[in-house]
Amino acid sequence: MRVVKTVKQLRLIIDGLRRKGRTIGFIPTMGYLHEGHLSLVRRCRQECDVTVVSIYVNPKQFGPHEDLQRYPRDIGRDSTMLKKENIDILFIPSDNAVYSSGYLTYIDVENVSRALCGAFRPGHFRGVATVVAKLLNMVQPHALYLGQKDAQQVAVLKRMAADLNFPVAVRTVPTMREADGLAMSSRNVYLSAAHRAQAPVIYKSLVAVRRCIRQGERRSATLVAMIKRNIESNSEGKIQYVACVDAESLEPLKTLRHRVLIAVAVFFGTTRLIDNVIVLIKN
Amino acid sequence: MRVVKTVKQLRLIIDGLRRKGRTIGFIPTMGYLHEGHLSLVRRCRQECDVTVVSIYVNPKQFGPHEDLQRYPRDIGRDSTMLKKENIDILFIPSDNAVYSSGYLTYIDVENVSRALCGAFRPGHFRGVATVVAKLLNMVQPHALYLGQKDAQQVAVLKRMAADLNFPVAVRTVPTMREADGLAMSSRNVYLSAAHRAQAPVIYKSLVAVRRCIRQGERRSATLVAMIKRNIESNSEGKIQYVACVDAESLEPLKTLRHRVLIAVAVFFGTTRLIDNVIVLIKN
Repeated sequence: MRVVKTVKQLRLIIDGLRRKGRTIGFIPTMGYLHEGHLSLVRRCRQECDVTVVSIYVNPKQFGPHEDLQRYPRDIGRDSTMLKKENIDILFIPSDNAVYSSGYLTYIDVENVSRALCGAFRPGHFRGVATVVAKLLNMVQPHALYLGQKDAQQVAVLKRMAADLNFPVAVRTVPTMREADGLAMSSRNVYLSAAHRAQAPVIYKSLVAVRRCIRQGERRSATLVAMIKRNIESNSEGKIQYVACVDAESLEPLKTLRHRVLIAVAVFFGTTRLIDNVIVLIKN
Repeated sequence: MRVVKTVKQLRLIIDGLRRKGRTIGFIPTMGYLHEGHLSLVRRCRQECDVTVVSIYVNPKQFGPHEDLQRYPRDIGRDSTMLKKENIDILFIPSDNAVYSSGYLTYIDVENVSRALCGAFRPGHFRGVATVVAKLLNMVQPHALYLGQKDAQQVAVLKRMAADLNFPVAVRTVPTMREADGLAMSSRNVYLSAAHRAQAPVIYKSLVAVRRCIRQGERRSATLVAMIKRNIESNSEGKIQYVACVDAESLEPLKTLRHRVLIAVAVFFGTTRLIDNVIVLIKN
């Protein structure tokens, strides 16, 4: 595993690899890795000649009152985990390697960025789209691996990659979960013991509505109400949103059809957890 | 010269060329070519193994009341001219090859896009930055050639390429002029005979202020007034703006310093002409 810290050095290595005809797979992360990230790494290792992982806590995707400063970081641990996975390149750029002074350029994916989390985190997906476009131009991968846990991020980045004709295939990898169903997230470490014990209610409520849909329920409002009731009556979680939307456009659905994303954001104390399921409606 | 009409076909060819280690140069145009475009082509042919020219009248960079519909087009003539220049690839995508239905992604280069022409053409440089980012991802060139006539376009695209880490070198080529000094532009065909005869006053006024600067004048306001007076008293041209700005950031200057862009936009009838000079201030 080579650890690379500058864009210049990365470009040199990538140019060499591409000239040799190697396929390059890329996993952008904010570090503090867990099994979810590693599942992306393993998928990439299966499909590409070269696996590149970046660790960069992107300040442009945090709002002024969000957790940029306290976002968990442990480069030593991350780097040991990635070495064990036999990745080829670990890219850890510094802040001023990513955003030079006088930085002015932003990428906006309209509509898709405004739904769900975007409504509560203005500018968040602009920051995500911008940094990922930059990383794509730095790494020049053939494939980009994203976790389905961040469903809106997937929708925004797929749209961006297609709209801007990035020569990259976007691959989505299923959400990894703890034994009790809680979606893995670097933010889970913030949870108190009591909240950690209650948090699996989120996924349980999603599984319950998925069962309901399989039994024929198609009304969005009914399903949303079920999830809210389930979470509110079984935990101290404060719901930020529950939504049934088209999985690609993220447009709200009254009646479920095609590929439906059912997405939830819940606060446990000051910790915001998100989770989702995608359900395919056949009739 | 291969004429390519789809992104898919272009990608296949480009992938082959890059695998062979060829350097690719790219000139994006809106067609209706003149010697200005050809000077970019010739520079590219000197510096790169492969020369790619695109012709695409990008609807996203025209305002609702601008000349998208009547913008001059003559693909037959353009293609004969480019064949004579021995270019390798002429890329002529259709509108729906460029913007698929459900298109949502836009690139904004803040500040630099708002100055000069940007103040009068809201959204124009957003359209330019977006289409050029798309074309860069389609063509994947090593070098991008731009004409200095569109000075703000150069500033916006250089900033965008640097900010988003596009792996491309941006090269600027001096403005080509008619014998009487008028900057070549596809829009010159709109001019009446009388206005065509008066239009060289624009460049004459720029040359006059450049002389003044060389003689020691450093006050922006004095130079701007000189240009306005010169154009207004010697033609029917209606000035949209005259500005002395930093050539890179496009920030207004009270006192000239470093690299100064002196830029003018003038209407002759309904035809808007732009021109500029860059002056290096040594003390």
